[in-house]
Amino acid sequence: MKKIINDANQVVLDMVKGIAAAYPDRLKHLPDTMVLARKQPAGSEKVGLVSGGGSGHEPAHAGYIGEGMLDAAVSGEVFTSPTPDQVFEAIKAVDNGAGVFLVVKNYTGDVLNFEMAAELADAEGIKVEHVVVNDDVAVEDSSFTSGRRGIAGTVFVHKIAGAKAEAGGSLEEVKSVAEKTVANARSMGMALSSGTVPAAGKPGFQLADDEMEIGIGIHGEPGIERKAIASADEIAEELTNKVLADIDFAAGDEVAVMINGLGATPEMELYILNGKVQELLAAKNIRVYKTFVGEYMTSLEMAGCSVTLLKLDEELKELLDAPSQAPAFKM
Amino acid sequence: MKKIINDANQVVLDMVKGIAAAYPDRLKHLPDTMVLARKQPAGSEKVGLVSGGGSGHEPAHAGYIGEGMLDAAVSGEVFTSPTPDQVFEAIKAVDNGAGVFLVVKNYTGDVLNFEMAAELADAEGIKVEHVVVNDDVAVEDSSFTSGRRGIAGTVFVHKIAGAKAEAGGSLEEVKSVAEKTVANARSMGMALSSGTVPAAGKPGFQLADDEMEIGIGIHGEPGIERKAIASADEIAEELTNKVLADIDFAAGDEVAVMINGLGATPEMELYILNGKVQELLAAKNIRVYKTFVGEYMTSLEMAGCSVTLLKLDEELKELLDAPSQAPAFKM
Repeated sequence: MKKIINDANQVVLDMVKGIAAAYPDRLKHLPDTMVLARKQPAGSEKVGLVSGGGSGHEPAHAGYIGEGMLDAAVSGEVFTSPTPDQVFEAIKAVDNGAGVFLVVKNYTGDVLNFEMAAELADAEGIKVEHVVVNDDVAVEDSSFTSGRRGIAGTVFVHKIAGAKAEAGGSLEEVKSVAEKTVANARSMGMALSSGTVPAAGKPGFQLADDEMEIGIGIHGEPGIERKAIASADEIAEELTNKVLADIDFAAGDEVAVMINGLGATPEMELYILNGKVQELLAAKNIRVYKTFVGEYMTSLEMAGCSVTLLKLDEELKELLDAPSQAPAFKM
Repeated sequence: MKKIINDANQVVLDMVKGIAAAYPDRLKHLPDTMVLARKQPAGSEKVGLVSGGGSGHEPAHAGYIGEGMLDAAVSGEVFTSPTPDQVFEAIKAVDNGAGVFLVVKNYTGDVLNFEMAAELADAEGIKVEHVVVNDDVAVEDSSFTSGRRGIAGTVFVHKIAGAKAEAGGSLEEVKSVAEKTVANARSMGMALSSGTVPAAGKPGFQLADDEMEIGIGIHGEPGIERKAIASADEIAEELTNKVLADIDFAAGDEVAVMINGLGATPEMELYILNGKVQELLAAKNIRVYKTFVGEYMTSLEMAGCSVTLLKLDEELKELLDAPSQAPAFKM
């Protein structure tokens, strides 16, 4: 294992401190927690927006804290759900009386712990609603997950729910656009190599030198198939066609595209992949409204990528375009 | 070699097409070139700003094209200077009568080829000025370089010169702030592993499993020392102290900090490093005005990082803070 760390058992705390130190005017680290929260302007009465999950997916989730996006992010241990008490601390920190909305990726531990936190908050009179993101079309049920996994599409949920909350939307309105985003987002990924959890000290899985895995999860959960590495064009086709087959995309539909790197993939390769994805969409007369290429939802230093399509309507376009000051998603 | 590509000899063209396809409303790919240029609003008379260099450093340089930053970027083959005719095409594309400014990283081929392009432009009556960025304090002279290498500090030059040009600065004024930025920026990097040039098919160098290299260049050029991997805190100290020792940073000075990933380093590790860099600066009463953490100047899938400090004055602060619509540096 080659990593720039101090102590394999303390990477999350060191990271949280390092994030807070990068943006001291915008972020506060809640004492004795793994919660980072936005420094609210006093008197704000907006709905609070909280997300989080296991660490190792940076910039998810703390990179999405900022005006127009999240109000707080909870970092669990690497690839491990945050505990309910930590999520509860985040909820309390961002509640301004208008309620708090939770964006949860579909992993059994995350769903359980965020729901327990919501119950704790409810007992203290804080209104909490949530959405579970399950955009990964690769497999039904998986390690850690019942149903489909939540992956890079989650970032679109942060953006769109965040814009609605920032615009003064009610808790129900924020929930409604978040649910619409989940219903309209589909993703699929692939990997060339594994990341290494610091405390484990070795890669989570092994792929041969000529092998890739299609449909892999962001914790290295098994995908659909291991096979010989294909060309970028073939990978683009396989991922995009699977995504397109899963939802009723019709000619003339408008979509947002996210070409996401999983941690160690050079941006050059993401753009090469993007070229083919755009061609495939054009061939089906699906109009691309906006494209995002970069690392949005990673898996430590996994080499690989995912393709996300979000079907848009006028409301989603407007919310996607709204300003955001989150360091990892400035608009 | 495991890469998401189609043809190892065609990665740059495929990438340039993929970048253009991602931002069709903002960028145009000049036919039969490796030049991407901003779609100017008609009638603009600003100074044109051009940068570029070998590919493999993405998001440098095309990711910095946008309102408030570059007007065009020239992509050479991987780790290879673009030819003078390509740079000349970029100059012609962005000249609006106010002249064109070139930001060149200090590599012998880049300097030579950008200067030759400037001469070609001059012969056609286009005023061209340039700056050579040499922020890397690691070594004097190196493979491909006479003097110090230009690395991540170049991105600050793009930002600041770009803001000055956008604000209507003359060619001389743009040159003056670019020179001030170069004079005030210092960087140093380290690596845990090498990237692989696609056409070469194997890593550019080898480091043992317990080894790192301090002071390495963004093409894998030799650094100062190979030694056992140190902790993040020790790495932060070594890089930061070298940078601080090179320029007259005094208590009370304000700086911008860039913690740059070289391609395969998880953002978690960059933030861990940042925590210590901020501590070191605070201990010296150097005030951090703004911090940037992410991948800004990479070396394919090299694992490693660099630390850049830019000493600020009121003019540089204002230009650093000016709006930018470049996808890789939105402000």
